[in-house]
Order: sequence, then structure tokens, then C-alpha cells
Amino acid sequence: MATKKLLVDIHTHVYLPRYANVLRSRSAVPRIVERAGPQGGTEERLVILENEPISGRPIGPQYWDRSQKLSFMDKHGIDLSVVSSANPWLDFMPPAEATTLASELNDDLEAYCSSSPAVAGTSLRRLYGFDHEAAALKGIIMGTRGIGRGLDDEQLEPVWRALADAGLIVFLHPHYGVDGKAFGEKDNGHVLPLALGFPFETTIATTRLILSGVFDRYPTLRLLLAHSGGALTQLSSRLASCITHDPVVASRLQHDARFYLGQLYYDAVAYGSEELGFVSDVISRADGYASLRASAKDSAGKVDRTRGSKRMLFGTDHPFFPPLSETEKWKSVIENLEAIEGVQGWSEEDRNGVRGSNALELFGLQV
Amino acid sequence: MATKKLLVDIHTHVYLPRYANVLRSRSAVPRIVERAGPQGGTEERLVILENEPISGRPIGPQYWDRSQKLSFMDKHGIDLSVVSSANPWLDFMPPAEATTLASELNDDLEAYCSSSPAVAGTSLRRLYGFDHEAAALKGIIMGTRGIGRGLDDEQLEPVWRALADAGLIVFLHPHYGVDGKAFGEKDNGHVLPLALGFPFETTIATTRLILSGVFDRYPTLRLLLAHSGGALTQLSSRLASCITHDPVVASRLQHDARFYLGQLYYDAVAYGSEELGFVSDVISRADGYASLRASAKDSAGKVDRTRGSKRMLFGTDHPFFPPLSETEKWKSVIENLEAIEGVQGWSEEDRNGVRGSNALELFGLQV
Repeated sequence: MATKKLLVDIHTHVYLPRYANVLRSRSAVPRIVERAGPQGGTEERLVILENEPISGRPIGPQYWDRSQKLSFMDKHGIDLSVVSSANPWLDFMPPAEATTLASELNDDLEAYCSSSPAVAGTSLRRLYGFDHEAAALKGIIMGTRGIGRGLDDEQLEPVWRALADAGLIVFLHPHYGVDGKAFGEKDNGHVLPLALGFPFETTIATTRLILSGVFDRYPTLRLLLAHSGGALTQLSSRLASCITHDPVVASRLQHDARFYLGQLYYDAVAYGSEELGFVSDVISRADGYASLRASAKDSAGKVDRTRGSKRMLFGTDHPFFPPLSETEKWKSVIENLEAIEGVQGWSEEDRNGVRGSNALELFGLQV
Repeated sequence: MATKKLLVDIHTHVYLPRYANVLRSRSAVPRIVERAGPQGGTEERLVILENEPISGRPIGPQYWDRSQKLSFMDKHGIDLSVVSSANPWLDFMPPAEATTLASELNDDLEAYCSSSPAVAGTSLRRLYGFDHEAAALKGIIMGTRGIGRGLDDEQLEPVWRALADAGLIVFLHPHYGVDGKAFGEKDNGHVLPLALGFPFETTIATTRLILSGVFDRYPTLRLLLAHSGGALTQLSSRLASCITHDPVVASRLQHDARFYLGQLYYDAVAYGSEELGFVSDVISRADGYASLRASAKDSAGKVDRTRGSKRMLFGTDHPFFPPLSETEKWKSVIENLEAIEGVQGWSEEDRNGVRGSNALELFGLQV
């Protein structure tokens, strides 16, 4: 009998009860509101964005109840979950208050993970907790605003240095999406901010980081991008060309922009096989672009999907994208598992890497 | 001796002299300004965006002089250019004035093309001219704002119907980019708006069109996307999943979002082989997503890069991305030609299609 291969979910969120209570106590966005439910009674809704076309999304025990996380894992055969808090985190609070709450939430998250052997005591933490000592701490989750001015803010320099020195994984995750005015007036629910706004935000943040030279100064920094890096991969050769055509910007960097994409890690939350295969191509071609004066010819023949697969990791985005009706498994999870299954050019070993063993290695997890 | 294969440039712009004069006469953005040049004397600069970090870009005869277009074509072996006007077009003018000027500019463009046998009398026209009769008229170029409220504006319905009925190609091109606040305060020249802002704009506009049902109502509408559709391809399975998880939005559409991407045309202006190969995968998988309840499994094995290549067409984006020094050929053109050359899985016939014969077929050109 073949050994069962591990399935590790590195993109899965929790809204801790203490945090949910803070959101309930607020009268401005972000907040949790109560309103009449569709089947009578009341329901709670999480409202993150200003001027949302509809008022937030339903929020309930699947957001904070550990037993629901474990049952979700059981249902989908997930062995380990590297749990992270989720946007909008704490940036709406005064810094001193946020620091105190962050510390409490880190302890809560530690308890959430360690009290359950099935969760294997691993968790991503957010920025406020990155200097805490904790058995479960394997990295931090970070939004794109930094301390208000984005991730290319020079005041973040000691943070990058500390993260690189500590060997912590930085899970870069969208925060509020980009400005929604571009999405127009038509009611498309949350489709445009979710499908485009959040990935655009990650793309912009990572590009600004590249342009700031952070990856040149801290080559050991390990950044994991949510939603497979959004649009970063598909726009990376255009980005490289725009940089080449601007000597001032180019002179600040040591490599062609495409090189840095091979230094990053990507979750496999892209919902399609061709998307995942392409991300692995972009990772594997990166070595061909070490020089600032590289061209397409330099990377010719260097595209090896196996190499790219090593930096990609399965995720679910739980508790988001819940099924519309009671089904055995969540459609969003099936989509991401089928996407991994369907990538042309990946061996079974590559797929097992993406499904689990890459995460064990990246986070240094013991099974 | 092998027959020389055609090279057709379908993404190449002209700022007609009459239009440049209008921009010179303006005191607000968009405008052409004169300032001290880097080597003494003065230079003209084209300023399109509000609050540009640096004041526009240099503009000169290569923007309007037909002989420079022809010399650029000679230098790169381009046989035919399907010339279009460029952003920001005329939306800053009162409608009546814009209509008159558009008509004059259409005549200017007709003269620009027809007076030169080497340009073969083909031109893309912008929206204001789409009902004019003209030998050179093969389509229209359209920005993403429509008549101010975007392309999902119901007032554009007769326009889509007329375009579909007339069989005109719509070249969808970014206009002003997305809101630049997300690009931060650091001086990165034009890199972020150019590399990310413009492709994001095309991505949002096309997605809004898909969500509006335009492609369900006008399945013969032929839309050609600038910059290979920007981020649309890489975010299309995520888009499909977001739609599936929103029954109200899903119920308005006849197909999975990925299906519509197979009905579109894409320029090959993405600067990288992997990007182009991926776009062709996304086009060719589309048939597997005809149903709204399709899944990754439905498209399995349907990815055939040859099929995808048929909807992709070479372009240069001339006169943008000019070389930094006097070189025989423009780096940006070489990048796009090498990108086509390097796509794995494309036959020589596929490459010749992208370089020229697909354009002949799409625009109905006679050689």
C-alpha cells in the first residue's frame, strides 16, 4: 500500500474570537454588523471595504471555531494547516492599542494551534507579533500597507532585516484591494474587488518591493505571495521592459525584474491548471534573467516546470469561497486540487511537492 | 528561395499633426508642453496623467511624421502597419467639438494611410469615426471609459450592435491607467503606471464587459485586446470561481468566464515567450468552459497552443518604448519578436500566423 501523501494548506485564515469582538464593537468600517437574515432571525456580516456594493459577507463560526477548521480539514483530507489571521488586521487602531491587542492575539493563535494536536502547532503570525518567541510561529502574515505608506517605505528597513535574519516566512496578503472606483457603478456583487482588486494589490506591493531593492539587500528574505502572486507573473516581462527603458530605475537594481520572481514563493490558489503551469514557468526561467541586460534568448530552454513547482504551495483560502449549498466538499478546494492535478509537465512528485512537501520544507515542519 | 513571410504590426500609433496642435493649445492635462531640453534648447513633452511623477515623456516627429513610421517599418522588416490613434483621444472635449474634430482626424488618418502605398491603406479608427465610410477603415480603437461610465454602460448597447453588424474590429486600449495612488510616493518614473496601471485598466474593462453580458448578446463582436489582455488571462480562473460563488452574477451569464476569453483576440505585446504561450493556452482551453458549471476537468487535454496562436497578433506599440541610444533596431521590438520566436509548442506556421497572417485574416487585408 502506498504511503498516503501529505496535504498541507498554507493559505487558511482564522478570525480569533477576541478579534471578532473588536470588530463587533466598532461603528465604522471595518466592522461586524448584525442584520435581518435571509431565513428570518439575524445574521452577522463582515464589512471590510468602504462603499461595498452589498453590505459585507456573512460571517459565522467557520471564521473562528477551531472545530469547524478541523472538520473542514477532515472533509478535504488536509493534514496540516498553517493558519494565519486575515485582513483587515489591526491598522485601523492606534499603534499602542494595536501592539497590545496583537500580542494577545498572538497568544490566542498559539493556543488555537497548540491545543489541538491535529493542527500540528504551526501558524503564520502577523507583523505585530514577529518578534515573539513561540513554538508555533513559523512566519508572519503581512498586508500591503506596511505602516501606512506601503512596503517600499524606508522605515520598514529594520523589519526586512529582522525577518531575513530570523528566517521567518513573510506571507504577503492583500488588505483592502485597490481603489474600487475603476470597477464602475454596476452591481457585480463582490466579483470585481475579489477577482481583480485583491490580486492587483499584491501585484503592486510586490513590484514596489522589487523596485525598492529590498531583494537585492536581503537575498535570503523569503516571501510567499497570496493568490499565486496575482498578475505579477503575467506582467513581469512587461515590467522588465519598462524598467530597462528607464535607466534611472534600472540603475538601482542588480537584476532583470524577472530574476526576482524566481526568488519568491507562490501559493497555488489560482483555480486553474494553466495558471499554475505558467507560474512555474516564470519561476524556472528566472535564472536566465540574472543580468540586467538579459533578453528572452537568455532564458531559452531554461523553462523546467519541475523547478518552478518547488516554490508553489497548496492553499484553500478557507473560510472564504464557501460552498453555496451543503455539499460534501467545497467547490473552491476541489478547483484548486484539480488545478494542481491538471498541470501539464508536472510529475506526480512535483504535484506531491505542491500539495505538501514543499510546505514542510519551507516552514521547517516536523510530521 | 523561401517566400519572405509577412510581418504585420497591429499595435502602432500616430498622433496626427492636427491632434498634436490641439494638445499644444491646452493649459490642462492632457497636453503637450515645451520645456528646456536635456541638451540645451527646448523639447516638447506629452503629459497624459494628472500628477505624473515626472512631467510626461518626450514627444517629437516619430509621433506624427509618416516618413518616420515608414523608416521604423523598414528598419524592422514590418510590411504592414494597422495604424491607430492613441490615448488620450478626445474625451476631454465637449461632445459636439469632439465629433467635428474626430471626423477631421479620420480624414487625416485616411490620407496618412492612403497617400503611402507602403502602409497599404489600412488603419484602425477611433470610436467617433466608426460610422464613416472609408477604404482604409478596418476597425476602431476604443478606450476603456466609453462615454464616461465605462464599457458596461447600457447606453453603449447600440454601439456594440453597430460594431458587431459592421464586422469592425474593436481594438481595446488603455486610456489613463488606474488610480495612481496605489503606486506610492517613491519616484519610480513611469514604471508602475506603464507596467501595471495600463494592463490593469484593460483587464478591468474587459471583465466588466464580460459581466455585462455583451459577449452573450453579440457573439460575433470581435475585440482585440492591447498588451495581450493585461492580467485578464492570469486572473481568469479566479474570476470564474468568484462568479460561480455569486449566483446572482452567475445567473446573468451564459458561460463560464473562461469561455469568453477564447472569443477574444490578443496582441502579442507581452515581451516574453512564457507569457505568450500562456495566453495561447488560455484561448485554446476556452471551449472546455462553455458551460457555467464547467470545472478544470472539462478542459483537461484541450490545451493546444496552435489553436490559441490563431487569435494572437504581433505589435510594437510604436512610437512608445523608443531605444535609449541610436541602435539599428528598437529593443522593445526585438523583445516582442524574440518572444514569439521562443514560445514552446508553436510551430513555424503558428509563429508566421502571429507575425502576419492572422492579421491579414482578422482585418481582411489584401496584399
